[in-house]
Amino acid sequence: MTDTPPRRPLRYERDPAAIYAQSFATVRAEARLERFPPGMARLATRLIHSCGMVEVADRLAFSPGAFEAGQAALASGAPVFADCEMVGAGIIRRYLPAENEVIVTLNATQVPERAARIGNTRSAAAVELWADKLGGAVVAIGNAPTALFRLLELIDEGAPRPAVILGFPVGFVGAAESKAELVRDPRGSEFVALRGRRGGSAMASAAVNALAAGLPEIDA
Amino acid sequence: MTDTPPRRPLRYERDPAAIYAQSFATVRAEARLERFPPGMARLATRLIHSCGMVEVADRLAFSPGAFEAGQAALASGAPVFADCEMVGAGIIRRYLPAENEVIVTLNATQVPERAARIGNTRSAAAVELWADKLGGAVVAIGNAPTALFRLLELIDEGAPRPAVILGFPVGFVGAAESKAELVRDPRGSEFVALRGRRGGSAMASAAVNALAAGLPEIDA
Repeated sequence: MTDTPPRRPLRYERDPAAIYAQSFATVRAEARLERFPPGMARLATRLIHSCGMVEVADRLAFSPGAFEAGQAALASGAPVFADCEMVGAGIIRRYLPAENEVIVTLNATQVPERAARIGNTRSAAAVELWADKLGGAVVAIGNAPTALFRLLELIDEGAPRPAVILGFPVGFVGAAESKAELVRDPRGSEFVALRGRRGGSAMASAAVNALAAGLPEIDA
Repeated sequence: MTDTPPRRPLRYERDPAAIYAQSFATVRAEARLERFPPGMARLATRLIHSCGMVEVADRLAFSPGAFEAGQAALASGAPVFADCEMVGAGIIRRYLPAENEVIVTLNATQVPERAARIGNTRSAAAVELWADKLGGAVVAIGNAPTALFRLLELIDEGAPRPAVILGFPVGFVGAAESKAELVRDPRGSEFVALRGRRGGSAMASAAVNALAAGLPEIDA
């Protein structure tokens, strides 16, 4: 079966600048971004671009100052906390304005023992390790509903407030509920969240990248 | 504003085993998995779990032997090639049956120069570095349509065939088209792909994790 006939070269867009321009133009054409303030429109564009779903714009919840608060936090050197390695891997380091630290504690050695002790998931236990440095930070949750729930509990227990909480846990158990709780009572933090079951690490890191740099691929 | 009234503890499921069981039960209840052969049903379950969207099952395309070919390739020690760091980060290493190598070349030093030389994206240039070791490998594309297009071109140019191609590029330019080309002519490889614009690194790594281990969270 190695004797297949020669094939014609495939036709596709190969120029990165053209790909970005066409992508973001499609988002603009389909997503009714004019409903958002300018910063949030850029964040929504990156979010939609990360998942290929224009309609997530319809389920986006946010506080009015969320974009500017996150942008200012990063500019002033605030760390970024993420609930899993995939979110960390999706953050474009060169976009971060102050070589901000990106902190993922999910695989820290003390986490399994702590999870067993507190009777919660490893994701929730990992969030407890952030408590001291949460004040003014950017928090990006792209996987575990229990991470977002535990974060809100920590704030209720007196932990300092993040500048902005990016709520994108995904799935069928607790994702919609944890984001609904964030939106219902953000506990003094600014927030962006995608309501419902959808979310994920690509969206969470896209939101961080938007706060860090907007849309430099086409704004430049 | 620090004098907020004390809040009641939040109610949510904290037991990882219960979370997995409930999640997968929801998928089973909503996704009509009986349309798939057993291996693909497990892969579809992980896929749906990774994105929170039951309806992706309706757009899943696959060759009849894809699951078994991927499973066998991993069992025999085949490497996993991924088009971006996020896919690599989502692969659960302890599930891999033979300490399989996970290879991501996107940030290799020679990639930017090679991309400029071939007039294609960095993602496409990174795929060229796989050519020698593609025979019998598992390939997971979770981000760039140009990576999937270039992979298909490489095979047309004579590169050895992967055992299975997991096609989950995402977005508005080339994602649907590259997956349609894979499904139209898989060039002798087995394949799994999500038709249309949707995809992403979480789905690509979920597919690898399914080939590696099925659903050990509930099968055990």
